[in-house]
Amino acid sequence: MLQPDSLASLQKLCGQHERFVVISHVRPDGDAYGSTLGIALSLHAMGKDVQVVNADGLSPLFEFLPGSKDLTVTLPTAPEPERIIIAVDCADAKRLGAVFDQWQRAPDVNIDHHISNPGYAKLNLIDSDSPATAQVLDEIITALKWPLTPEVAANLYVGIMTDTGNFRYRQTTAHTFKVAARLIEAGADPTTLAEACYQSFRAERLLLVRELFQAIHFANQNRVAWFCLTPEMYARSGATPDETEGLIDYLQTVKTVEVAFVVESMSGGLTRASMRSRGTVNVQQICAEFGGGGHRLAAGLRTKLDPVALEKKLLDLIAKQLPT
Amino acid sequence: MLQPDSLASLQKLCGQHERFVVISHVRPDGDAYGSTLGIALSLHAMGKDVQVVNADGLSPLFEFLPGSKDLTVTLPTAPEPERIIIAVDCADAKRLGAVFDQWQRAPDVNIDHHISNPGYAKLNLIDSDSPATAQVLDEIITALKWPLTPEVAANLYVGIMTDTGNFRYRQTTAHTFKVAARLIEAGADPTTLAEACYQSFRAERLLLVRELFQAIHFANQNRVAWFCLTPEMYARSGATPDETEGLIDYLQTVKTVEVAFVVESMSGGLTRASMRSRGTVNVQQICAEFGGGGHRLAAGLRTKLDPVALEKKLLDLIAKQLPT
Repeated sequence: MLQPDSLASLQKLCGQHERFVVISHVRPDGDAYGSTLGIALSLHAMGKDVQVVNADGLSPLFEFLPGSKDLTVTLPTAPEPERIIIAVDCADAKRLGAVFDQWQRAPDVNIDHHISNPGYAKLNLIDSDSPATAQVLDEIITALKWPLTPEVAANLYVGIMTDTGNFRYRQTTAHTFKVAARLIEAGADPTTLAEACYQSFRAERLLLVRELFQAIHFANQNRVAWFCLTPEMYARSGATPDETEGLIDYLQTVKTVEVAFVVESMSGGLTRASMRSRGTVNVQQICAEFGGGGHRLAAGLRTKLDPVALEKKLLDLIAKQLPT
Repeated sequence: MLQPDSLASLQKLCGQHERFVVISHVRPDGDAYGSTLGIALSLHAMGKDVQVVNADGLSPLFEFLPGSKDLTVTLPTAPEPERIIIAVDCADAKRLGAVFDQWQRAPDVNIDHHISNPGYAKLNLIDSDSPATAQVLDEIITALKWPLTPEVAANLYVGIMTDTGNFRYRQTTAHTFKVAARLIEAGADPTTLAEACYQSFRAERLLLVRELFQAIHFANQNRVAWFCLTPEMYARSGATPDETEGLIDYLQTVKTVEVAFVVESMSGGLTRASMRSRGTVNVQQICAEFGGGGHRLAAGLRTKLDPVALEKKLLDLIAKQLPT
């Protein structure tokens, strides 16, 4: 739950200003896009002048989101002093990207659900019990009686649906389902939006999955599963690195798998890994050894180690934590 | 919505009887099991004597359902005349299986959501707008103020979650989400139940998926996708035929795929196929040519044709319906 005084401050700020810019983190996911566009369209419906920016622009996978065509990679000029900067779904101001760095101004408002968010703005509305920033925005919009148009509802629905893995992850509560019901009543179509999110990939992504399945490894009596994404796999399948979202989920369908990870060699000699845990192993702790971050159950890292060396180190670190 | 007089008749019937047997269709899915156990446990909480039967018994994949250990393949004797037979989630009495045939009695009550259900019982409660029989049961339990224990709630939640493909398929409405919220408040845990349904497979199933991906075919500019399951794939992966649920979903993740199908050779010289459509092609019509059935968007068939011949016929029939 948000504090009543934070909500009142936000209402006052929005009453006093006419111009806004909304921004979220680099490598945006459904909650980043949905939250950015959701609050922007609600403010716009109140007659405000609202810009939407993301350092990584708009992924083709999210072009279906209402209002997404207005999203720009950068602005012609830095926001005027009286334009309010709202950051959404971003735990760390450093992840707002190059476009934000150029502005040389702290965000005015910081709306988020990540527990690690230090509150880097003048006004911070953070609910770490919420499974998605879009659900925090629903609370704001409901409490302050802001417009909930069908377009706002669709964006918030996508934020909640994707950040809860289709209403499955921890922090999904009865309240989450009630919010979803309200958003559907306001005009979000659950079937169309789910199809847009989960059944709208290119055939090339399926061919990449085929490559990955050839490279599945198990260890520790099938308690650990992983695969390595190689440049050759991209070349053979025709898929691109922005089509890898959700691939780690395949490994997690196996009951015995307590830890799943994906290792990928990137351009510039870097290697990245994405890790998931079912609970017993703390993958955030493992990723932190390489300067990475995340949560206990989902974390990531980047390193100069080559993929083979990283794979070996990760297996060692996992084995140390696995209860016997 | 159910008719008030049907609900009143059910209430009266349950008030007048102490013994019940609940049964569902062969090859039971999450809604068949969840509905069977959900209504049985609610009746049991009212002090009734309730038996639960399924001709195919209990799949290991659903052993996590509360009350499932009481599910039997057959009964020691046919139900006594005063024992009320309740069929759930079964569109056609023929699909109640061998155990039911032996009883040589029509079901007393028929609770379902399939539009094709002809109403084969003395008392029929069918809501074809509902995405799951478990949601029909929620309506009954709510209207008649029957007990909604945590165990009943968990079973109904699994029925709704699985039959809506995680709240994605058509017929999922705001009401479905409100029902889910109520079930969670009554004790169903969405995270634990989703993990039990979707992340509790054997590693062998993942190896079967690997085999299948090697055999993916596309046709008609990637508008049709399919694969054939062979005995060799089972042998190499170690998976079993009851582990194929949901595999067709992988094909449907591709945006261009309007029709997806899986062909499988079964024992006894039979071949079966499962088909899915995104909307333009009516797969029920195609399956009907082989005596199969289902819905416009999801249907199946069994034939004596060999897999190669069936594959060719299906591709021809699909091509005829595909708009150019």
